[in-house]
Amino acid sequence: MRTDRRNCLHDHAGQRRVQRRPVHRRQNYPAGKTPHRAASVSDVPKSHPRYESLRLREAIVAGVKRGVTSEHGLIAHGRGEAYDYLLGEKTHDFALAAIDAAAQLLTSASHPVISVNGNVAALVAADLVRLSEALGAPLEVNIFHASKQREQAIRSCLQKHGAGEVLMPSTDAELDFIDSNRKYVHPEGIYKADAIFVPLEDGDRCQALRQMGKAVVTVDLNPMSRTSRAASITIVDNVVRALPLLLESLRGLAADNGRHSAEFDNLAHLAAAEREIRSQGS
Amino acid sequence: MRTDRRNCLHDHAGQRRVQRRPVHRRQNYPAGKTPHRAASVSDVPKSHPRYESLRLREAIVAGVKRGVTSEHGLIAHGRGEAYDYLLGEKTHDFALAAIDAAAQLLTSASHPVISVNGNVAALVAADLVRLSEALGAPLEVNIFHASKQREQAIRSCLQKHGAGEVLMPSTDAELDFIDSNRKYVHPEGIYKADAIFVPLEDGDRCQALRQMGKAVVTVDLNPMSRTSRAASITIVDNVVRALPLLLESLRGLAADNGRHSAEFDNLAHLAAAEREIRSQGS
Repeated sequence: MRTDRRNCLHDHAGQRRVQRRPVHRRQNYPAGKTPHRAASVSDVPKSHPRYESLRLREAIVAGVKRGVTSEHGLIAHGRGEAYDYLLGEKTHDFALAAIDAAAQLLTSASHPVISVNGNVAALVAADLVRLSEALGAPLEVNIFHASKQREQAIRSCLQKHGAGEVLMPSTDAELDFIDSNRKYVHPEGIYKADAIFVPLEDGDRCQALRQMGKAVVTVDLNPMSRTSRAASITIVDNVVRALPLLLESLRGLAADNGRHSAEFDNLAHLAAAEREIRSQGS
Repeated sequence: MRTDRRNCLHDHAGQRRVQRRPVHRRQNYPAGKTPHRAASVSDVPKSHPRYESLRLREAIVAGVKRGVTSEHGLIAHGRGEAYDYLLGEKTHDFALAAIDAAAQLLTSASHPVISVNGNVAALVAADLVRLSEALGAPLEVNIFHASKQREQAIRSCLQKHGAGEVLMPSTDAELDFIDSNRKYVHPEGIYKADAIFVPLEDGDRCQALRQMGKAVVTVDLNPMSRTSRAASITIVDNVVRALPLLLESLRGLAADNGRHSAEFDNLAHLAAAEREIRSQGS
């Protein structure tokens, strides 16, 4: 196991915060002025068992404030928190195997592309830029909940983290088999790609990409989702833990001169992930 | 089983939407104008297996736009979605038992109070007003993420749904054992209450209320949360399904002249809920 960030989890993600003093003093505030304060992650020591979860939560909320993440993206993040909690908030062997298989698939693709939405931009922009460089693969913005402004905010976010050109959706190319905003893609990007890395994907588009014969690598904490089941390779892990490990796997592959291992059985790995979620005390 | 809203769930909450046509036509839009559209719940037929989940998701996002719900509330909603999905999105026997016990506890309290946050206001305002009337219990606004404006928006939301007086947090009374914004309560409400109904509660305050000797009834989809474990009675169910059932149980109790049943074992019911979540194909 290359990584084990699991901490002692006694309670639900983020429902426990900084140590509290039992207090019962009455403060004198000016009449009508109720003081207001809620703990933010900056109040929480790094040693806190929920620190990482709270840090990500703040990052994704900040993503909304910066115009990068949608409100529906926050709900999706919450779903991910719950599944990650049930997985013990650590990278399991089934995820490590998927990461290695993904590294091989993306390396051997002729035209890999990295699809970026508002959640991954808020959480792992720098790692996406590194991945783009490592693979020589363009970054392309593609979001579910329609907003031209948000598309541009995501591009700016990536560029602030060092990205050069960022491909944008256009009406010049459309995906088959999909009828939402996500069908509009860049002709030199997703449209032409033979392999797409799309962390935190929606099921419709994942299926459409597969039906078009493209290989899809996704990162999804829910092994039961349609995305997970439709993808060629699903990394059931938190995208924040998975991205650095994918970069590490790519470096290992380069040093190994691109060794090729056996076929990856995605459904078998998803079944292992679901067993982990369903098992007591993961 | 009084209710069974379970539908055929083949995929993750909300990741599947209305039936799609495979299309590949190119539309002519004015240059530079990328069309944008994402499905909203109004596009989704009621017969759709994900309809209820999508409807709630829209309601909670609308809550943010109306200033009622916080962005962190959206993340909490997402966590709830995941747990509800694992529970098969139906009310189980352990929840029905908790609902009946809650009806008895709240009916026999001398001074029950209903604590309202931004998520329940967005989802079940009308049912909270009905509960307040059924119990003769005041509604009191109490939120985790500090905002005077949001407190007032919640009060307005309740009043739009028929509430009379709504108690507001004040600096005149503070809870012991808690150091966040939530310690500020109304002297005639939560401060004085012997029993509090607090759906979607945070763990810290739930523990503080219990330490002060108050009975706490909560609704929480995560049976492992600190709130769930600290409460006197935890209804592990979606608040949208649980509230009408609680109202029904109260009516039954009134007709029965307040029969009293055996002690409620909260931890045993939580264990049953966790077994359900952890079991295959709930």
